[in-house]
Amino acid sequence: MTSHIEARGAWLENTWYVAARSDELGDAPLGRTICGHKMVFFRGGEGKVAALEDFCPHRGAPLSLGFLKDGGLTCGYHGLSLDCRGKPQGMSGQDVSRLPGAKAYPCVERHGFIWVWPGDASRADEARLPRLHWAEDRGWAYGGGLYHIRCDYRLMIDNLMDLTHETYVHATSIGQKEIDETPVETVLEGGEVITRRFMRDVRAPPFWRAALAGAGLPEDAQIDRWQICRFSLPSHVMIEVGVALAGHGGYEAEHAKKASSIVVDFITPETETSHWYFWGMARNFAASDATLTETIRAGQGKIFSEDLAMLEQQQDNLTRNPGRRLVTLNIDAGGAQSRAMIERALKAEATT
Amino acid sequence: MTSHIEARGAWLENTWYVAARSDELGDAPLGRTICGHKMVFFRGGEGKVAALEDFCPHRGAPLSLGFLKDGGLTCGYHGLSLDCRGKPQGMSGQDVSRLPGAKAYPCVERHGFIWVWPGDASRADEARLPRLHWAEDRGWAYGGGLYHIRCDYRLMIDNLMDLTHETYVHATSIGQKEIDETPVETVLEGGEVITRRFMRDVRAPPFWRAALAGAGLPEDAQIDRWQICRFSLPSHVMIEVGVALAGHGGYEAEHAKKASSIVVDFITPETETSHWYFWGMARNFAASDATLTETIRAGQGKIFSEDLAMLEQQQDNLTRNPGRRLVTLNIDAGGAQSRAMIERALKAEATT
Amino acid sequence: MTSHIEARGAWLENTWYVAARSDELGDAPLGRTICGHKMVFFRGGEGKVAALEDFCPHRGAPLSLGFLKDGGLTCGYHGLSLDCRGKPQGMSGQDVSRLPGAKAYPCVERHGFIWVWPGDASRADEARLPRLHWAEDRGWAYGGGLYHIRCDYRLMIDNLMDLTHETYVHATSIGQKEIDETPVETVLEGGEVITRRFMRDVRAPPFWRAALAGAGLPEDAQIDRWQICRFSLPSHVMIEVGVALAGHGGYEAEHAKKASSIVVDFITPETETSHWYFWGMARNFAASDATLTETIRAGQGKIFSEDLAMLEQQQDNLTRNPGRRLVTLNIDAGGAQSRAMIERALKAEATT
Repeated sequence: MTSHIEARGAWLENTWYVAARSDELGDAPLGRTICGHKMVFFRGGEGKVAALEDFCPHRGAPLSLGFLKDGGLTCGYHGLSLDCRGKPQGMSGQDVSRLPGAKAYPCVERHGFIWVWPGDASRADEARLPRLHWAEDRGWAYGGGLYHIRCDYRLMIDNLMDLTHETYVHATSIGQKEIDETPVETVLEGGEVITRRFMRDVRAPPFWRAALAGAGLPEDAQIDRWQICRFSLPSHVMIEVGVALAGHGGYEAEHAKKASSIVVDFITPETETSHWYFWGMARNFAASDATLTETIRAGQGKIFSEDLAMLEQQQDNLTRNPGRRLVTLNIDAGGAQSRAMIERALKAEATT
Repeated sequence: MTSHIEARGAWLENTWYVAARSDELGDAPLGRTICGHKMVFFRGGEGKVAALEDFCPHRGAPLSLGFLKDGGLTCGYHGLSLDCRGKPQGMSGQDVSRLPGAKAYPCVERHGFIWVWPGDASRADEARLPRLHWAEDRGWAYGGGLYHIRCDYRLMIDNLMDLTHETYVHATSIGQKEIDETPVETVLEGGEVITRRFMRDVRAPPFWRAALAGAGLPEDAQIDRWQICRFSLPSHVMIEVGVALAGHGGYEAEHAKKASSIVVDFITPETETSHWYFWGMARNFAASDATLTETIRAGQGKIFSEDLAMLEQQQDNLTRNPGRRLVTLNIDAGGAQSRAMIERALKAEATT
Repeated sequence: MTSHIEARGAWLENTWYVAARSDELGDAPLGRTICGHKMVFFRGGEGKVAALEDFCPHRGAPLSLGFLKDGGLTCGYHGLSLDCRGKPQGMSGQDVSRLPGAKAYPCVERHGFIWVWPGDASRADEARLPRLHWAEDRGWAYGGGLYHIRCDYRLMIDNLMDLTHETYVHATSIGQKEIDETPVETVLEGGEVITRRFMRDVRAPPFWRAALAGAGLPEDAQIDRWQICRFSLPSHVMIEVGVALAGHGGYEAEHAKKASSIVVDFITPETETSHWYFWGMARNFAASDATLTETIRAGQGKIFSEDLAMLEQQQDNLTRNPGRRLVTLNIDAGGAQSRAMIERALKAEATT
C-alpha cells in the first residue's frame, strides 16, 4: 500500500496541549510559540498560570521580555501592566481604562505541566484534560525533558507508534533484533489507537538490564518484554513498556517479578514543520529513588536525541518531495491510524 | 488613539547619513550597505574619503576585498583600479579608457564621521551637513560606538524620543521611577521635534552618580534632572541630559553645579528591517580625562545594548502583524511627530 | 565588450561528474547533493561503489543515515535494505518483493575518485570517463582536497581559466607581477579550451621556490614559467604549471631542468548557487616523497581557500544584479569560451 504522508501543518485547535513543564515557569515569563500562536506564559496572583499573546498592545514589544508584578505581567519596554486575562491594569502616569488588551488563552496547570487551549476560548473545558493516574499516585515517580524538533508533529507520532525503529536507531540501548521479528497488533479501542508487541523469553537490552537491576531483579535473566503504544487526541502517546522474568505472565506478571514503566510523550505543534516534544518516563518501582529517576531521565534523553537527525532530515526529504507516495506496512499501522484519527477530528472541528 | 506603526523601509535618499566613524576607515576599504545600497568606503589621495558601489565593473567582484593604491581602489580579483569617482584608472596590460566605471556616492568626512549621500549625487550639498558644535569645541569630549540592529530605523527613533523606557529597560543604570511619573512635553521647534522632561529634587541613579563624581560633585546629593530629546531629519537624535544640584536652576544652573552631556545618535538605515546605530556621548566636564571618556563609553555601550533584544523582537512582532493598530500615548508623541516629519519629507522628496 | 555573466544554474546532466574522493567512502554511506539531486553513495559487495537517491522508499528517511549490510544499504530508521541498484532486498518480518525501490544513479570508481552520472542512466557510458594519465603512472604523485563553495560552478571555471587573479588573490604564494604583464593566448583545440601564458627569465614566487627545492634545483635561479589551462566538458580544468631554469627551453626543457605539475580541478555543481570543488596537484618529480606531497597539498589548500570569499561575494553581487552587463577582456577569454562550450553542449543535450 502506498500513500502520501502529510508532513506540513494541520493540527487541532480546540483542545489542550502541553505548553511547558511546571518547573519551567518560575518568577519570569516564558515566550513560546504553540500551534503557530506566539504566546507568553507566566504565573499571576498565587502562582496561577496564564497565557497571553506575546505582543504588547501598546507598541508591539514582546511581553516575554517583561516581568511579573502585582499578580500580572508588566511589559519591559514602557511598563504597561496586564492582568492574567490580558486586561490593562496599570501604567505609570496613564489612564489605561480605554487601552486595548492582549488576547488571552485558556491555561491550566495540572500533573506537573502547563496546558494551553490555542483555539476558541469559549469552548475550553478543563474536564477534557487527560487524566494521568501516575501523576496523582505516590507509588509512581516521573522524570522527563523537552526537545525542540524541526519536523511536523505527526512524524514524531509515526515514530512513537512504531517501535520497530528501536532496533535501528537505538541499537545500543533499547533496541534488540526480536523487536522487528515480532509482529505488532494495532487496534482502535476506547478512543485510543493501540499498537502492541509482546516478545517472549528473550534477553534484556542494556537499558532494561539497568532497569531490572534498579528493580532488584537479575539483569541476566531471560525475560518477557512488552510495548503497548497508546495514541490519543490531539497528539499524546503513552507507551506501556516493561520486562518480566520469563514465564511469570509477562505483562500480567505480579509486581515483584517485573520492571515496567510508562513512556510519556506530549507532542505539541509549534509551526507547520516544528514541534515541542515533551518526553518522560513514569515508573512504579523504586519510586522514591531520586538517583534512579535521574539516571533513567539521562538515559532516556540520550536515546530520544538519537531520533532528532533522522526526523529532521525525513522532514526535509518530504518537504522536497511533496505528494510523493510512500509505503505503509503493517508496522506503520499505528501511525497511520493515529493520523486518520486526527484527520477525522479536524473534519469534525471544521464543521462545528 | 490607535494607529499603525510603519516598521519596514521608506527612508529619505537625498540627504546625508553617517556611514562610519572616521577611525573605522584606515588603510583598507570598508564594505557597508547604506539605505539598501551596497557601498565600499575608502581613503583616496591625501586621505580624502570616497564611496563607490561595492561591485567591480569588470566581473562583479566586491571592491571591498580590494586594496588602496595610487590614490584609488584596486579590485582584489583581477586588478582593475578605480579612482575616487569610480573611473577606471588602470589595469595591468589593459587599456581601461573604454571600460565602464563604478557608481560613486558623494562622501564627506566631518566631525569624526564619514557622511554619505545615497540619493541623487547632483543634489548633494555639504552645506546641509549638520553642525555639531561639541565636535569643534576643545571644551568637549566625545566617545561612542556602533551597533548593527535588525529593526527598521524608525523603531530606534521611537525608542530615543521616548525615554520612559529607561525606567524599565535600563533600570540598573539610568532608569528611575520618577521618569515615567514626570510628564513630557513635545513641541516642534526650529525644524526639530523636541520632547522634554524635567524632574526636580530626586536622587541620581547609578550612571549619574558616577557622572557627578566625575564632575567633582557629591554623588549622594538631591538633584534636578533633565532630558531634552531633539530629532532632526533624516534620522538624528541628540539628547541633552544632565543633573544639577537641586535648587540651583536645573538645566539653567551654572556650570560648576551640574554634570551634563549630549547623547549623540545617528541612525542609518541599512535595509528595510535593519539599521546602523552610531551612539555616543559628548560632555563638557573633565573633557581632557580620557579614562573617564572610556568609562562613560563602556557604560553607555552596555546600557544601549539592553535595547537590542527588545527592538529586534518588536520588529519581529510588527512584521508578523502587518497593519495591526497600536496605541500612541502622550509619551509616544516624540516618536510619532518624528515619524510624521519623515513622512512629510518623503512626500516632498517624491515630488521634486 | 560587455556581456551578462550567467551565475545561476544550468549544467549538463548526461555526463560524468566527480562526486567524491575514493577515500571519502569507507564503511559508512555518504550523503551528497550533485547537480540538484540528493544522493547517497556507498560501497556494496566487494567494495563496488553505488549511488542512490537519498530517500528511503518506505517512509522518506535519509538513507545516508543508514548502514552497510549484506552488500547493500540498510535504512537506519526501520531497516529496509536496498541493493546497489536500489532494489529492496530485505526487511525484517516483511515481504519486500512488491515494495518500490530507490532511484539508482550510474556510479563508477576510477583514478581515485567516485564518478556519478546524474542524467539519463540508460545513456551512461564508462568510455566517456576522462583519461587521467598521471593517475595511472607510478612516476606521478597526487594530493588534493575538497571545498564546498557557495557560488555557481561557472564562476570557479572563470577563476581557473584566468590566472591573472593569482597576482592579486595569491600575492604571497604563486602570484607575481609578471603574470598580468604577460599576454595570454586562448584557443580551442581537440575539444578543449586552452588558455596559456609563458613568462621568461623571471624569479620564482614562494610556492615555486619550494617546488624547485623539492626537485633539487636552485630556488634562487632565474626561471621560465608557464601556465596552460585546459577546460573540458562538463566542468574539468587541468592546468599544466611549471618552472624551468631560464634558457633551457621552458615548457620543453628536459626533465632534470624543471619542476612541473598539473593542477587538477573537478568542479561539480551542487545547487544553482553552490558547487563542490575537488582540487589537487599531480607532479612527476620526487613522486615517492610523501612528505612533499603533503606539504604541497597543505600549501595548495591554503592558496585555494583565498578564493572562497571572493567567489562567494561575487556570486552575491551577481545575484543582486541579475542581467547587469559586465566586461569580458582578453584575460577573460578562457572562461568565456568555456562557458560558450557548455552553452553549446546544453543546447545539444536539450535536443537529443
